Amino acid sequence: MGRLEIIPVEGVPEVRPGDRLADLLVAGSVAFEAGDVVVVTQKVVSKAEGRLVAVDHDNRRAWAAVVDGEAVRVLRRRGDLVITETRAGFVCANSGVDLSNVPDGYATLLPVDADRSARRIRDGLRARTGVEVAVVVSDTFGRPWRRGLADVAIGCAGIAAVVDLRGTSDARGRELTVTEVAVVDELAAAAELVMGKASGICAAVVRGVAPAWLVDGGSVRADIVRPPAEDLFR
Amino acid sequence: MGRLEIIPVEGVPEVRPGDRLADLLVAGSVAFEAGDVVVVTQKVVSKAEGRLVAVDHDNRRAWAAVVDGEAVRVLRRRGDLVITETRAGFVCANSGVDLSNVPDGYATLLPVDADRSARRIRDGLRARTGVEVAVVVSDTFGRPWRRGLADVAIGCAGIAAVVDLRGTSDARGRELTVTEVAVVDELAAAAELVMGKASGICAAVVRGVAPAWLVDGGSVRADIVRPPAEDLFR
Repeated sequence: MGRLEIIPVEGVPEVRPGDRLADLLVAGSVAFEAGDVVVVTQKVVSKAEGRLVAVDHDNRRAWAAVVDGEAVRVLRRRGDLVITETRAGFVCANSGVDLSNVPDGYATLLPVDADRSARRIRDGLRARTGVEVAVVVSDTFGRPWRRGLADVAIGCAGIAAVVDLRGTSDARGRELTVTEVAVVDELAAAAELVMGKASGICAAVVRGVAPAWLVDGGSVRADIVRPPAEDLFR
Repeated sequence: MGRLEIIPVEGVPEVRPGDRLADLLVAGSVAFEAGDVVVVTQKVVSKAEGRLVAVDHDNRRAWAAVVDGEAVRVLRRRGDLVITETRAGFVCANSGVDLSNVPDGYATLLPVDADRSARRIRDGLRARTGVEVAVVVSDTFGRPWRRGLADVAIGCAGIAAVVDLRGTSDARGRELTVTEVAVVDELAAAAELVMGKASGICAAVVRGVAPAWLVDGGSVRADIVRPPAEDLFR
């Protein structure tokens, strides 16, 4: 396997509700190539899909109502921080409701179905450019046991979410037992390294990914979200 | 911020206890450049440091004794799977004890102090090449709530583990409240994308990282490991 390039997509116009993201992404600095993985941040996906709510963060009751409305379960609560499970099955802070980089008085909600969001962007890019890319929708999550935030995938299309190396033998010819790698999460993390949080860059391309990972389907919800019954920490 | 390249280091000789990793890494396919982040997998760091134990995995009692010996706390146990907190503070499966890519009848233990391991490799590469690089020691961990494994950092040197963007304003000029990004974890994840689990590649270079992230110190243990008292899931 050769090298990868991670390329920020600069010059994407400001995203507004109702915009088609593919139209805006092709206006950016990168000419997409077949096999590229285009990582797009949740923030602009939610904006384009109109997943904005008016909320006054200083009004604790109003804020809590928005967060609770997105949750199916509260895992932990400490002061202002609440860790919830969202309807889509993500466990994250504040149900993914986010105030940064949105107009004052508004917050973004997570896309209803980020796999579908990824499929739409992928279809739009194919229609615009004739090029077949994969798309990952990323968001910034905290983690238990480890400080700091890291980007993960909340939706994907055109790439396997998890690449299953079970049964392939290791370098010594012995069978490996568990090596299901969450490649879409690693791609989201890699993309974040060129995006930063304050630079206004909403997308990045990972170029050079193994062709075997590129499939027609792909779903974070089906392959990454761990059902509660299978989970040791819920 | 520009683009990043992720380059696998091929042709590194088989690592044996007592080897100096820097000597082996410079024999590989990449000529290191100033500012490179060299990501090295735990497996070869542990091997070089002699962190190998003889253990028969089919002897459950012997295996459990090794895993328990590395742990300060057991968080969860289900069947053969045990999630522990290691002496260094990592929460992971089987205390990080690992059978893959090691000689039959042996397992690797995590390095005693992977930040120190990273410093040694960095110092060794400086001595060999005259070039100042950063080093990240990576390992493959599972995550609660999400299926699939992803690489994270267990040690670092020459790079800030967490880049704190608190107080910098977002693209709309408003103050961001929490954006401490665990860049070493994202670098470990990015590197894994070119390493695979079965291809025998033990290191990768991330080239093009923001110079502001490169510092003289850096510590996963101090800046990423979350103290139990601060943790909601322990």
